[in-house]
Amino acid sequence: MPQQTQAWVVDELNGPFVLRDVTLDDPLEDEVLIEMVASGICHTDLLVASGHLPDNKFPVILGHEGAGYVVKAGAKAGRLQPGELVLLSFACCEDCDPCKTGATYACDTWTPINFLKQRASGNPAVGVLGDGNLKGKPVEGSFFGQSSFARHALVKESSCVVVPKGTDVKTLAPLGCGLQTGAGGVFNAANVQPHNTVLVSGLGGVGMAALFAAASIGAKTIIVVDINEERLKLAKELGATHAVNPKSLSGTTTPEEARRLTDGRGVDFVIECTGHPAAAKDAFLSLGMRGRMVQIGSSPGELSVGFNDILLGLRSIEACVEGNDSPHRLVPRLVELHKQGKFPVDRIVKTYPWKEMHQALEDMHSGKVIKPILVFDQ
Amino acid sequence: MPQQTQAWVVDELNGPFVLRDVTLDDPLEDEVLIEMVASGICHTDLLVASGHLPDNKFPVILGHEGAGYVVKAGAKAGRLQPGELVLLSFACCEDCDPCKTGATYACDTWTPINFLKQRASGNPAVGVLGDGNLKGKPVEGSFFGQSSFARHALVKESSCVVVPKGTDVKTLAPLGCGLQTGAGGVFNAANVQPHNTVLVSGLGGVGMAALFAAASIGAKTIIVVDINEERLKLAKELGATHAVNPKSLSGTTTPEEARRLTDGRGVDFVIECTGHPAAAKDAFLSLGMRGRMVQIGSSPGELSVGFNDILLGLRSIEACVEGNDSPHRLVPRLVELHKQGKFPVDRIVKTYPWKEMHQALEDMHSGKVIKPILVFDQ
Repeated sequence: MPQQTQAWVVDELNGPFVLRDVTLDDPLEDEVLIEMVASGICHTDLLVASGHLPDNKFPVILGHEGAGYVVKAGAKAGRLQPGELVLLSFACCEDCDPCKTGATYACDTWTPINFLKQRASGNPAVGVLGDGNLKGKPVEGSFFGQSSFARHALVKESSCVVVPKGTDVKTLAPLGCGLQTGAGGVFNAANVQPHNTVLVSGLGGVGMAALFAAASIGAKTIIVVDINEERLKLAKELGATHAVNPKSLSGTTTPEEARRLTDGRGVDFVIECTGHPAAAKDAFLSLGMRGRMVQIGSSPGELSVGFNDILLGLRSIEACVEGNDSPHRLVPRLVELHKQGKFPVDRIVKTYPWKEMHQALEDMHSGKVIKPILVFDQ
Repeated sequence: MPQQTQAWVVDELNGPFVLRDVTLDDPLEDEVLIEMVASGICHTDLLVASGHLPDNKFPVILGHEGAGYVVKAGAKAGRLQPGELVLLSFACCEDCDPCKTGATYACDTWTPINFLKQRASGNPAVGVLGDGNLKGKPVEGSFFGQSSFARHALVKESSCVVVPKGTDVKTLAPLGCGLQTGAGGVFNAANVQPHNTVLVSGLGGVGMAALFAAASIGAKTIIVVDINEERLKLAKELGATHAVNPKSLSGTTTPEEARRLTDGRGVDFVIECTGHPAAAKDAFLSLGMRGRMVQIGSSPGELSVGFNDILLGLRSIEACVEGNDSPHRLVPRLVELHKQGKFPVDRIVKTYPWKEMHQALEDMHSGKVIKPILVFDQ
């Protein structure tokens, strides 16, 4: 039986988020109906709303850091039972070579599955709109397999990571995207060890998660770089050993500072979370011999570094998407670290009643909040 | 007793190679006196002569792809006996952490040791000049621990790889630099496997060695890219499965060609041997998902690639210098492969009587010869 619900809908390219009544279809075979408890908001949602990512269709329900309860499972979604609590992450096909070897972040169909194209045989609509001038029009969904800016959502089984009842999913909702990305950059793409020195470039939610992960390992030196003094201060409270604000440096540069703070050697790893050409280049030049930069930050720009800076430093650059891991392995690891006090997500999130979406967006834009979370109080 | 010999000396910055009489000092404790049999010529020799690499002093004896017989060993160079045949490679300190763990290519003092600064307590001179207007003036040496453009040379013990008597060192002299670099790029930095697809960008000696290495592994697809038709033809005879000349492409691009030749996937590995910004970018964009570019080619330019091309392809870039290996491990491997017919160096080298240096340089500049070798017939 179709589910009546409400969702934040973007009606058209560059349109605002509008609260609308929606009638969801029944779940497909590989989907479950989720009653949402919370959903983080990520810059990627906004990039899609403004057409900066491929093949968007409108009207659409966005949101991809959801958490909630299973209400009903499709015929082939038998791993999940009604009543289970789940954190949501990206979807994958579970059938290609990367998926079969556990590298679901590199699923052959990652982009179409997560960016609206493959809910079912070419029809990604998840239901129809129930109000306003778009009444009766199909609404696109299955964004990252979830479209979580809604009280209920049809979610791919592959997106669902079951967590114990009682888990504080109102705080941990963003684990399945931004936070696992930063943490996985440290754990997987870099594989940081206690004797290593690390520089985190950019202190949004991803950079903060990278900081938590590096601190949880006990990396001996963790340098954070940002132009926001408050975030630098918070980062030092949360495990950074040194904070660098490029705008406050006088007579020196970020790479020179990094070298000064590492006995002249430069850092072993950079976790680059800005996608800003100048910041990324400075971060790269902060690397010591055989240092590796993990590139996470995305932008339409280009990374430009000298051939000789690559070669004479024997440096490498590694891409990291979604933490280069399966959320079914990484999310439980982060839940446990949080329980042990080593992944203090609560220090960087702020919850908003879900109807205060616009306030949450404003606070995100102004930099007042690092990671806003909508809470769907019932 | 000092050794009288002759060497090709560069008297001053940008000066020509001049044949001069030289009186070599006695070997230092960690040096051996070598009677040279052959020496390859590499572009790096010319870069140093023209001041493109750091801290050159003049007059200087260059050359760093030597091979010859041990004449006399210094007090602490006890691993070598007079009469042994050696292929020469770069020098290292044998004492820092990278050296102790076998990563001598990343020796903490690699640059000063190999670029003229550390023969002994600040004095890199290897002897004095015996003729012309510079008579009696100290001549700098120990370039890559060897300064092999000479009938005799004082060579660091760490530069010497002993090979069996009878080894054809007149052909194999360049193994210890350019050829081990290309081969090690395939074996170590990429770790190519038989099911992999590989693109080699640039067919100088380094690119040809990468081709030989990839073919020796049995990589299923090896695409070579160059603008020299003769080299493309030779590469196909020597194991390349496809040859692409960017200048001959019409209505398509190198990345599109690479995709067409790999069932639409793009290649698993690029071995980039040009250091040319446009060629390197095209090579990078030829990579498929999770593909890795091994950067070997050096230039004063910059590598510029889109953040999204890194991220959406989950691509990585890895630096490779001297094959990211110890020559004491890699050179014997290549000697054995050559013996088995799987590393056909003889197809890319041309030998010249050592007094025909200028002809060899001219043929290298014009592209007529891939790897010229000077032979010191006694």
